[in-house]
Amino acid sequence: MGEQTRSQFEFECLATCSVTGARAGRFFTPHGIVDTPRFMPVGTLADVKGVTPAQLADCQAQMVLANTYHLHLQPGEAIVEQAGGLHAFMGWSGPMLTDSGGFQVFSLSELRQVSERGVVFRSPRDGDIIDLTPERAIAIQNILGADVIMAFDECPPYPAERAAVEAATARTYRWLERCMTAHERTDQALFGIVQGGVHLDLRTQAARELVALDLPGYAIGGVSVGEPVEAMHAIVRATAPLLPADRPRYLMGVGTYREMAIAIAAGVDLFDCVIPTRLGRHGTALVRSGERLNLKNAQFREDFTPLDPLCECYTCQTFSRGYLHHLVRSREILAATLLSIHNITELIRFTRSIRAAIFGDRFARDFSRFLN
Amino acid sequence: MGEQTRSQFEFECLATCSVTGARAGRFFTPHGIVDTPRFMPVGTLADVKGVTPAQLADCQAQMVLANTYHLHLQPGEAIVEQAGGLHAFMGWSGPMLTDSGGFQVFSLSELRQVSERGVVFRSPRDGDIIDLTPERAIAIQNILGADVIMAFDECPPYPAERAAVEAATARTYRWLERCMTAHERTDQALFGIVQGGVHLDLRTQAARELVALDLPGYAIGGVSVGEPVEAMHAIVRATAPLLPADRPRYLMGVGTYREMAIAIAAGVDLFDCVIPTRLGRHGTALVRSGERLNLKNAQFREDFTPLDPLCECYTCQTFSRGYLHHLVRSREILAATLLSIHNITELIRFTRSIRAAIFGDRFARDFSRFLN
Ligand SMILES: [Zn+2]
Ligand SMILES: [Zn+2]
Repeated sequence: MGEQTRSQFEFECLATCSVTGARAGRFFTPHGIVDTPRFMPVGTLADVKGVTPAQLADCQAQMVLANTYHLHLQPGEAIVEQAGGLHAFMGWSGPMLTDSGGFQVFSLSELRQVSERGVVFRSPRDGDIIDLTPERAIAIQNILGADVIMAFDECPPYPAERAAVEAATARTYRWLERCMTAHERTDQALFGIVQGGVHLDLRTQAARELVALDLPGYAIGGVSVGEPVEAMHAIVRATAPLLPADRPRYLMGVGTYREMAIAIAAGVDLFDCVIPTRLGRHGTALVRSGERLNLKNAQFREDFTPLDPLCECYTCQTFSRGYLHHLVRSREILAATLLSIHNITELIRFTRSIRAAIFGDRFARDFSRFLN
Repeated sequence: MGEQTRSQFEFECLATCSVTGARAGRFFTPHGIVDTPRFMPVGTLADVKGVTPAQLADCQAQMVLANTYHLHLQPGEAIVEQAGGLHAFMGWSGPMLTDSGGFQVFSLSELRQVSERGVVFRSPRDGDIIDLTPERAIAIQNILGADVIMAFDECPPYPAERAAVEAATARTYRWLERCMTAHERTDQALFGIVQGGVHLDLRTQAARELVALDLPGYAIGGVSVGEPVEAMHAIVRATAPLLPADRPRYLMGVGTYREMAIAIAAGVDLFDCVIPTRLGRHGTALVRSGERLNLKNAQFREDFTPLDPLCECYTCQTFSRGYLHHLVRSREILAATLLSIHNITELIRFTRSIRAAIFGDRFARDFSRFLN
């Protein structure tokens, strides 16, 4: 990782919690700053489902994700390149991150052949045989052009034999070295991914090995794959503190209140999850208390209060629960849009409120109900 | 119709065409001014499908429609009333219009029993027996609270026996008198609807009878029901000039370029149609030339130009045809939103450009390709 890349992707720690490992910082990227801790919405196919980039900005989104696996299948990276890259293609001028496709290859695709070279699988779109190697995953991401790109990793399922997890973790390291060699753009930061399943000794070893590679950022992967939630907490608590303090830390695929608070207490900075838009499409709103409101329920029919009277999102400033109930009942697609706007705003608000608490050193006290 | 209502719903003619009957005007309502001629987007269930009120305003929408029939079935007017009326319920603070439900009762519902009293039909939602009379249609619209409400009319199918059309037209007149008696709110304008099928003598007679009732506005209904397009042109040309010059004229359910231009030339001011959102949900964009682009077509895969380089809508200012092709192919709901935004903007732009042409007395010349 050259000096040029490092200086473009500085992580500045602005405040730390005196009780926990939580920190508030700023992550610099070529497309802008990410104030951490921060939740990042997911735009799988180069769009956050039902939400325009202008609405996303109103949700206070800073960094947005897209999925390499999905974009490789449709429309293909060549199209995105011709459009001028992912930012231009999808109309998002802020920071972006692409995952490597590893997680999706192992969780979504069938007929996989995994070897040291990479993974061969059948496209669920058209049945084509697709050959994905660390080099190819990086080449695709270099073409897509997100600010942060992720190493191609082998994500073992849960549960799995310890020996299988050990082998996958070792292979993830060797693949990371190949990713680093393949990576060509200095305006993109390559993050490594700590694997190791639920085995804390494997996680610890993997974290130490990755740190030695001096990457501009680190992720904790292979969580939220079916393991007990306590196992995830233990993984995050064991791993995050081992990662360098001057680099951003990203917990992949996690977006629940309690898990984000616990991870932030362990020193994590970034999160992503499809939950706000998926719940939105199913008529469900996340509210401040941690509760989920199913707007389809008859109890909301005559409820003319906003989803959350304190929420600053467009949905809460404009519409009532009764109106949203009506849209959900009527199966109007606007329901998905309005609920997704609220849910994204709400998860970002949660991480912003933690950030504010860290600045005032009130995090451990104010968020104790999530931490204990 | 009292003096109070009249003064709140003034129609001011600002310019007329020296060649045709086209006029540019301003229609005043309690929720704002409508600059005419103007296309009005349709928000059937108190939402324009896939488009937020903020996006609608960006589309330059002024007056928005909602459907009495649909809202009576779901959520019911009592809910809208509790929410503070239609404007508050759906978050649209500009002018609104509700249809009477007549057209839908005759076109959508089954098991109709039509009598002088009104129509009894079975709700397609829950099978309930619903009894809709002129008095009830007005009472519902008084509760919904749109600025303009429509008389409950009998809309004969096409084709129909002349005797049947004659009877329906006569009944529509009697029902209109009952609507006027039932109408209670001075902050709502009741428009009468000229029926008469394709029979120009019936249309002429109906128009004359309605004009004698001195209503604040008039609509031409019962068109776009399957009759040849030339028959519709003839109806509009025969009817519109008979309506008072100092009242707005509204052609119901029409939103194609040629038909709007011809109607404007006959003196029509207002139009509505579900076409922009329906086409949007089916992946189709309306463009300036009158052409329809099916974004699903492979020809757009590598087309990184906007739908319309001159269009000022959010979609055209932000996204390419190639991106929209990708969203349509991926069946992303954002495709419907972005295409609907463009299509609504485009039809409103068309009527705005005619308005500008009328002010410059260039309408007959600049729009001759639609008029001949
Ligand atoms: Zn909200
Ligand atoms: Zn446009």
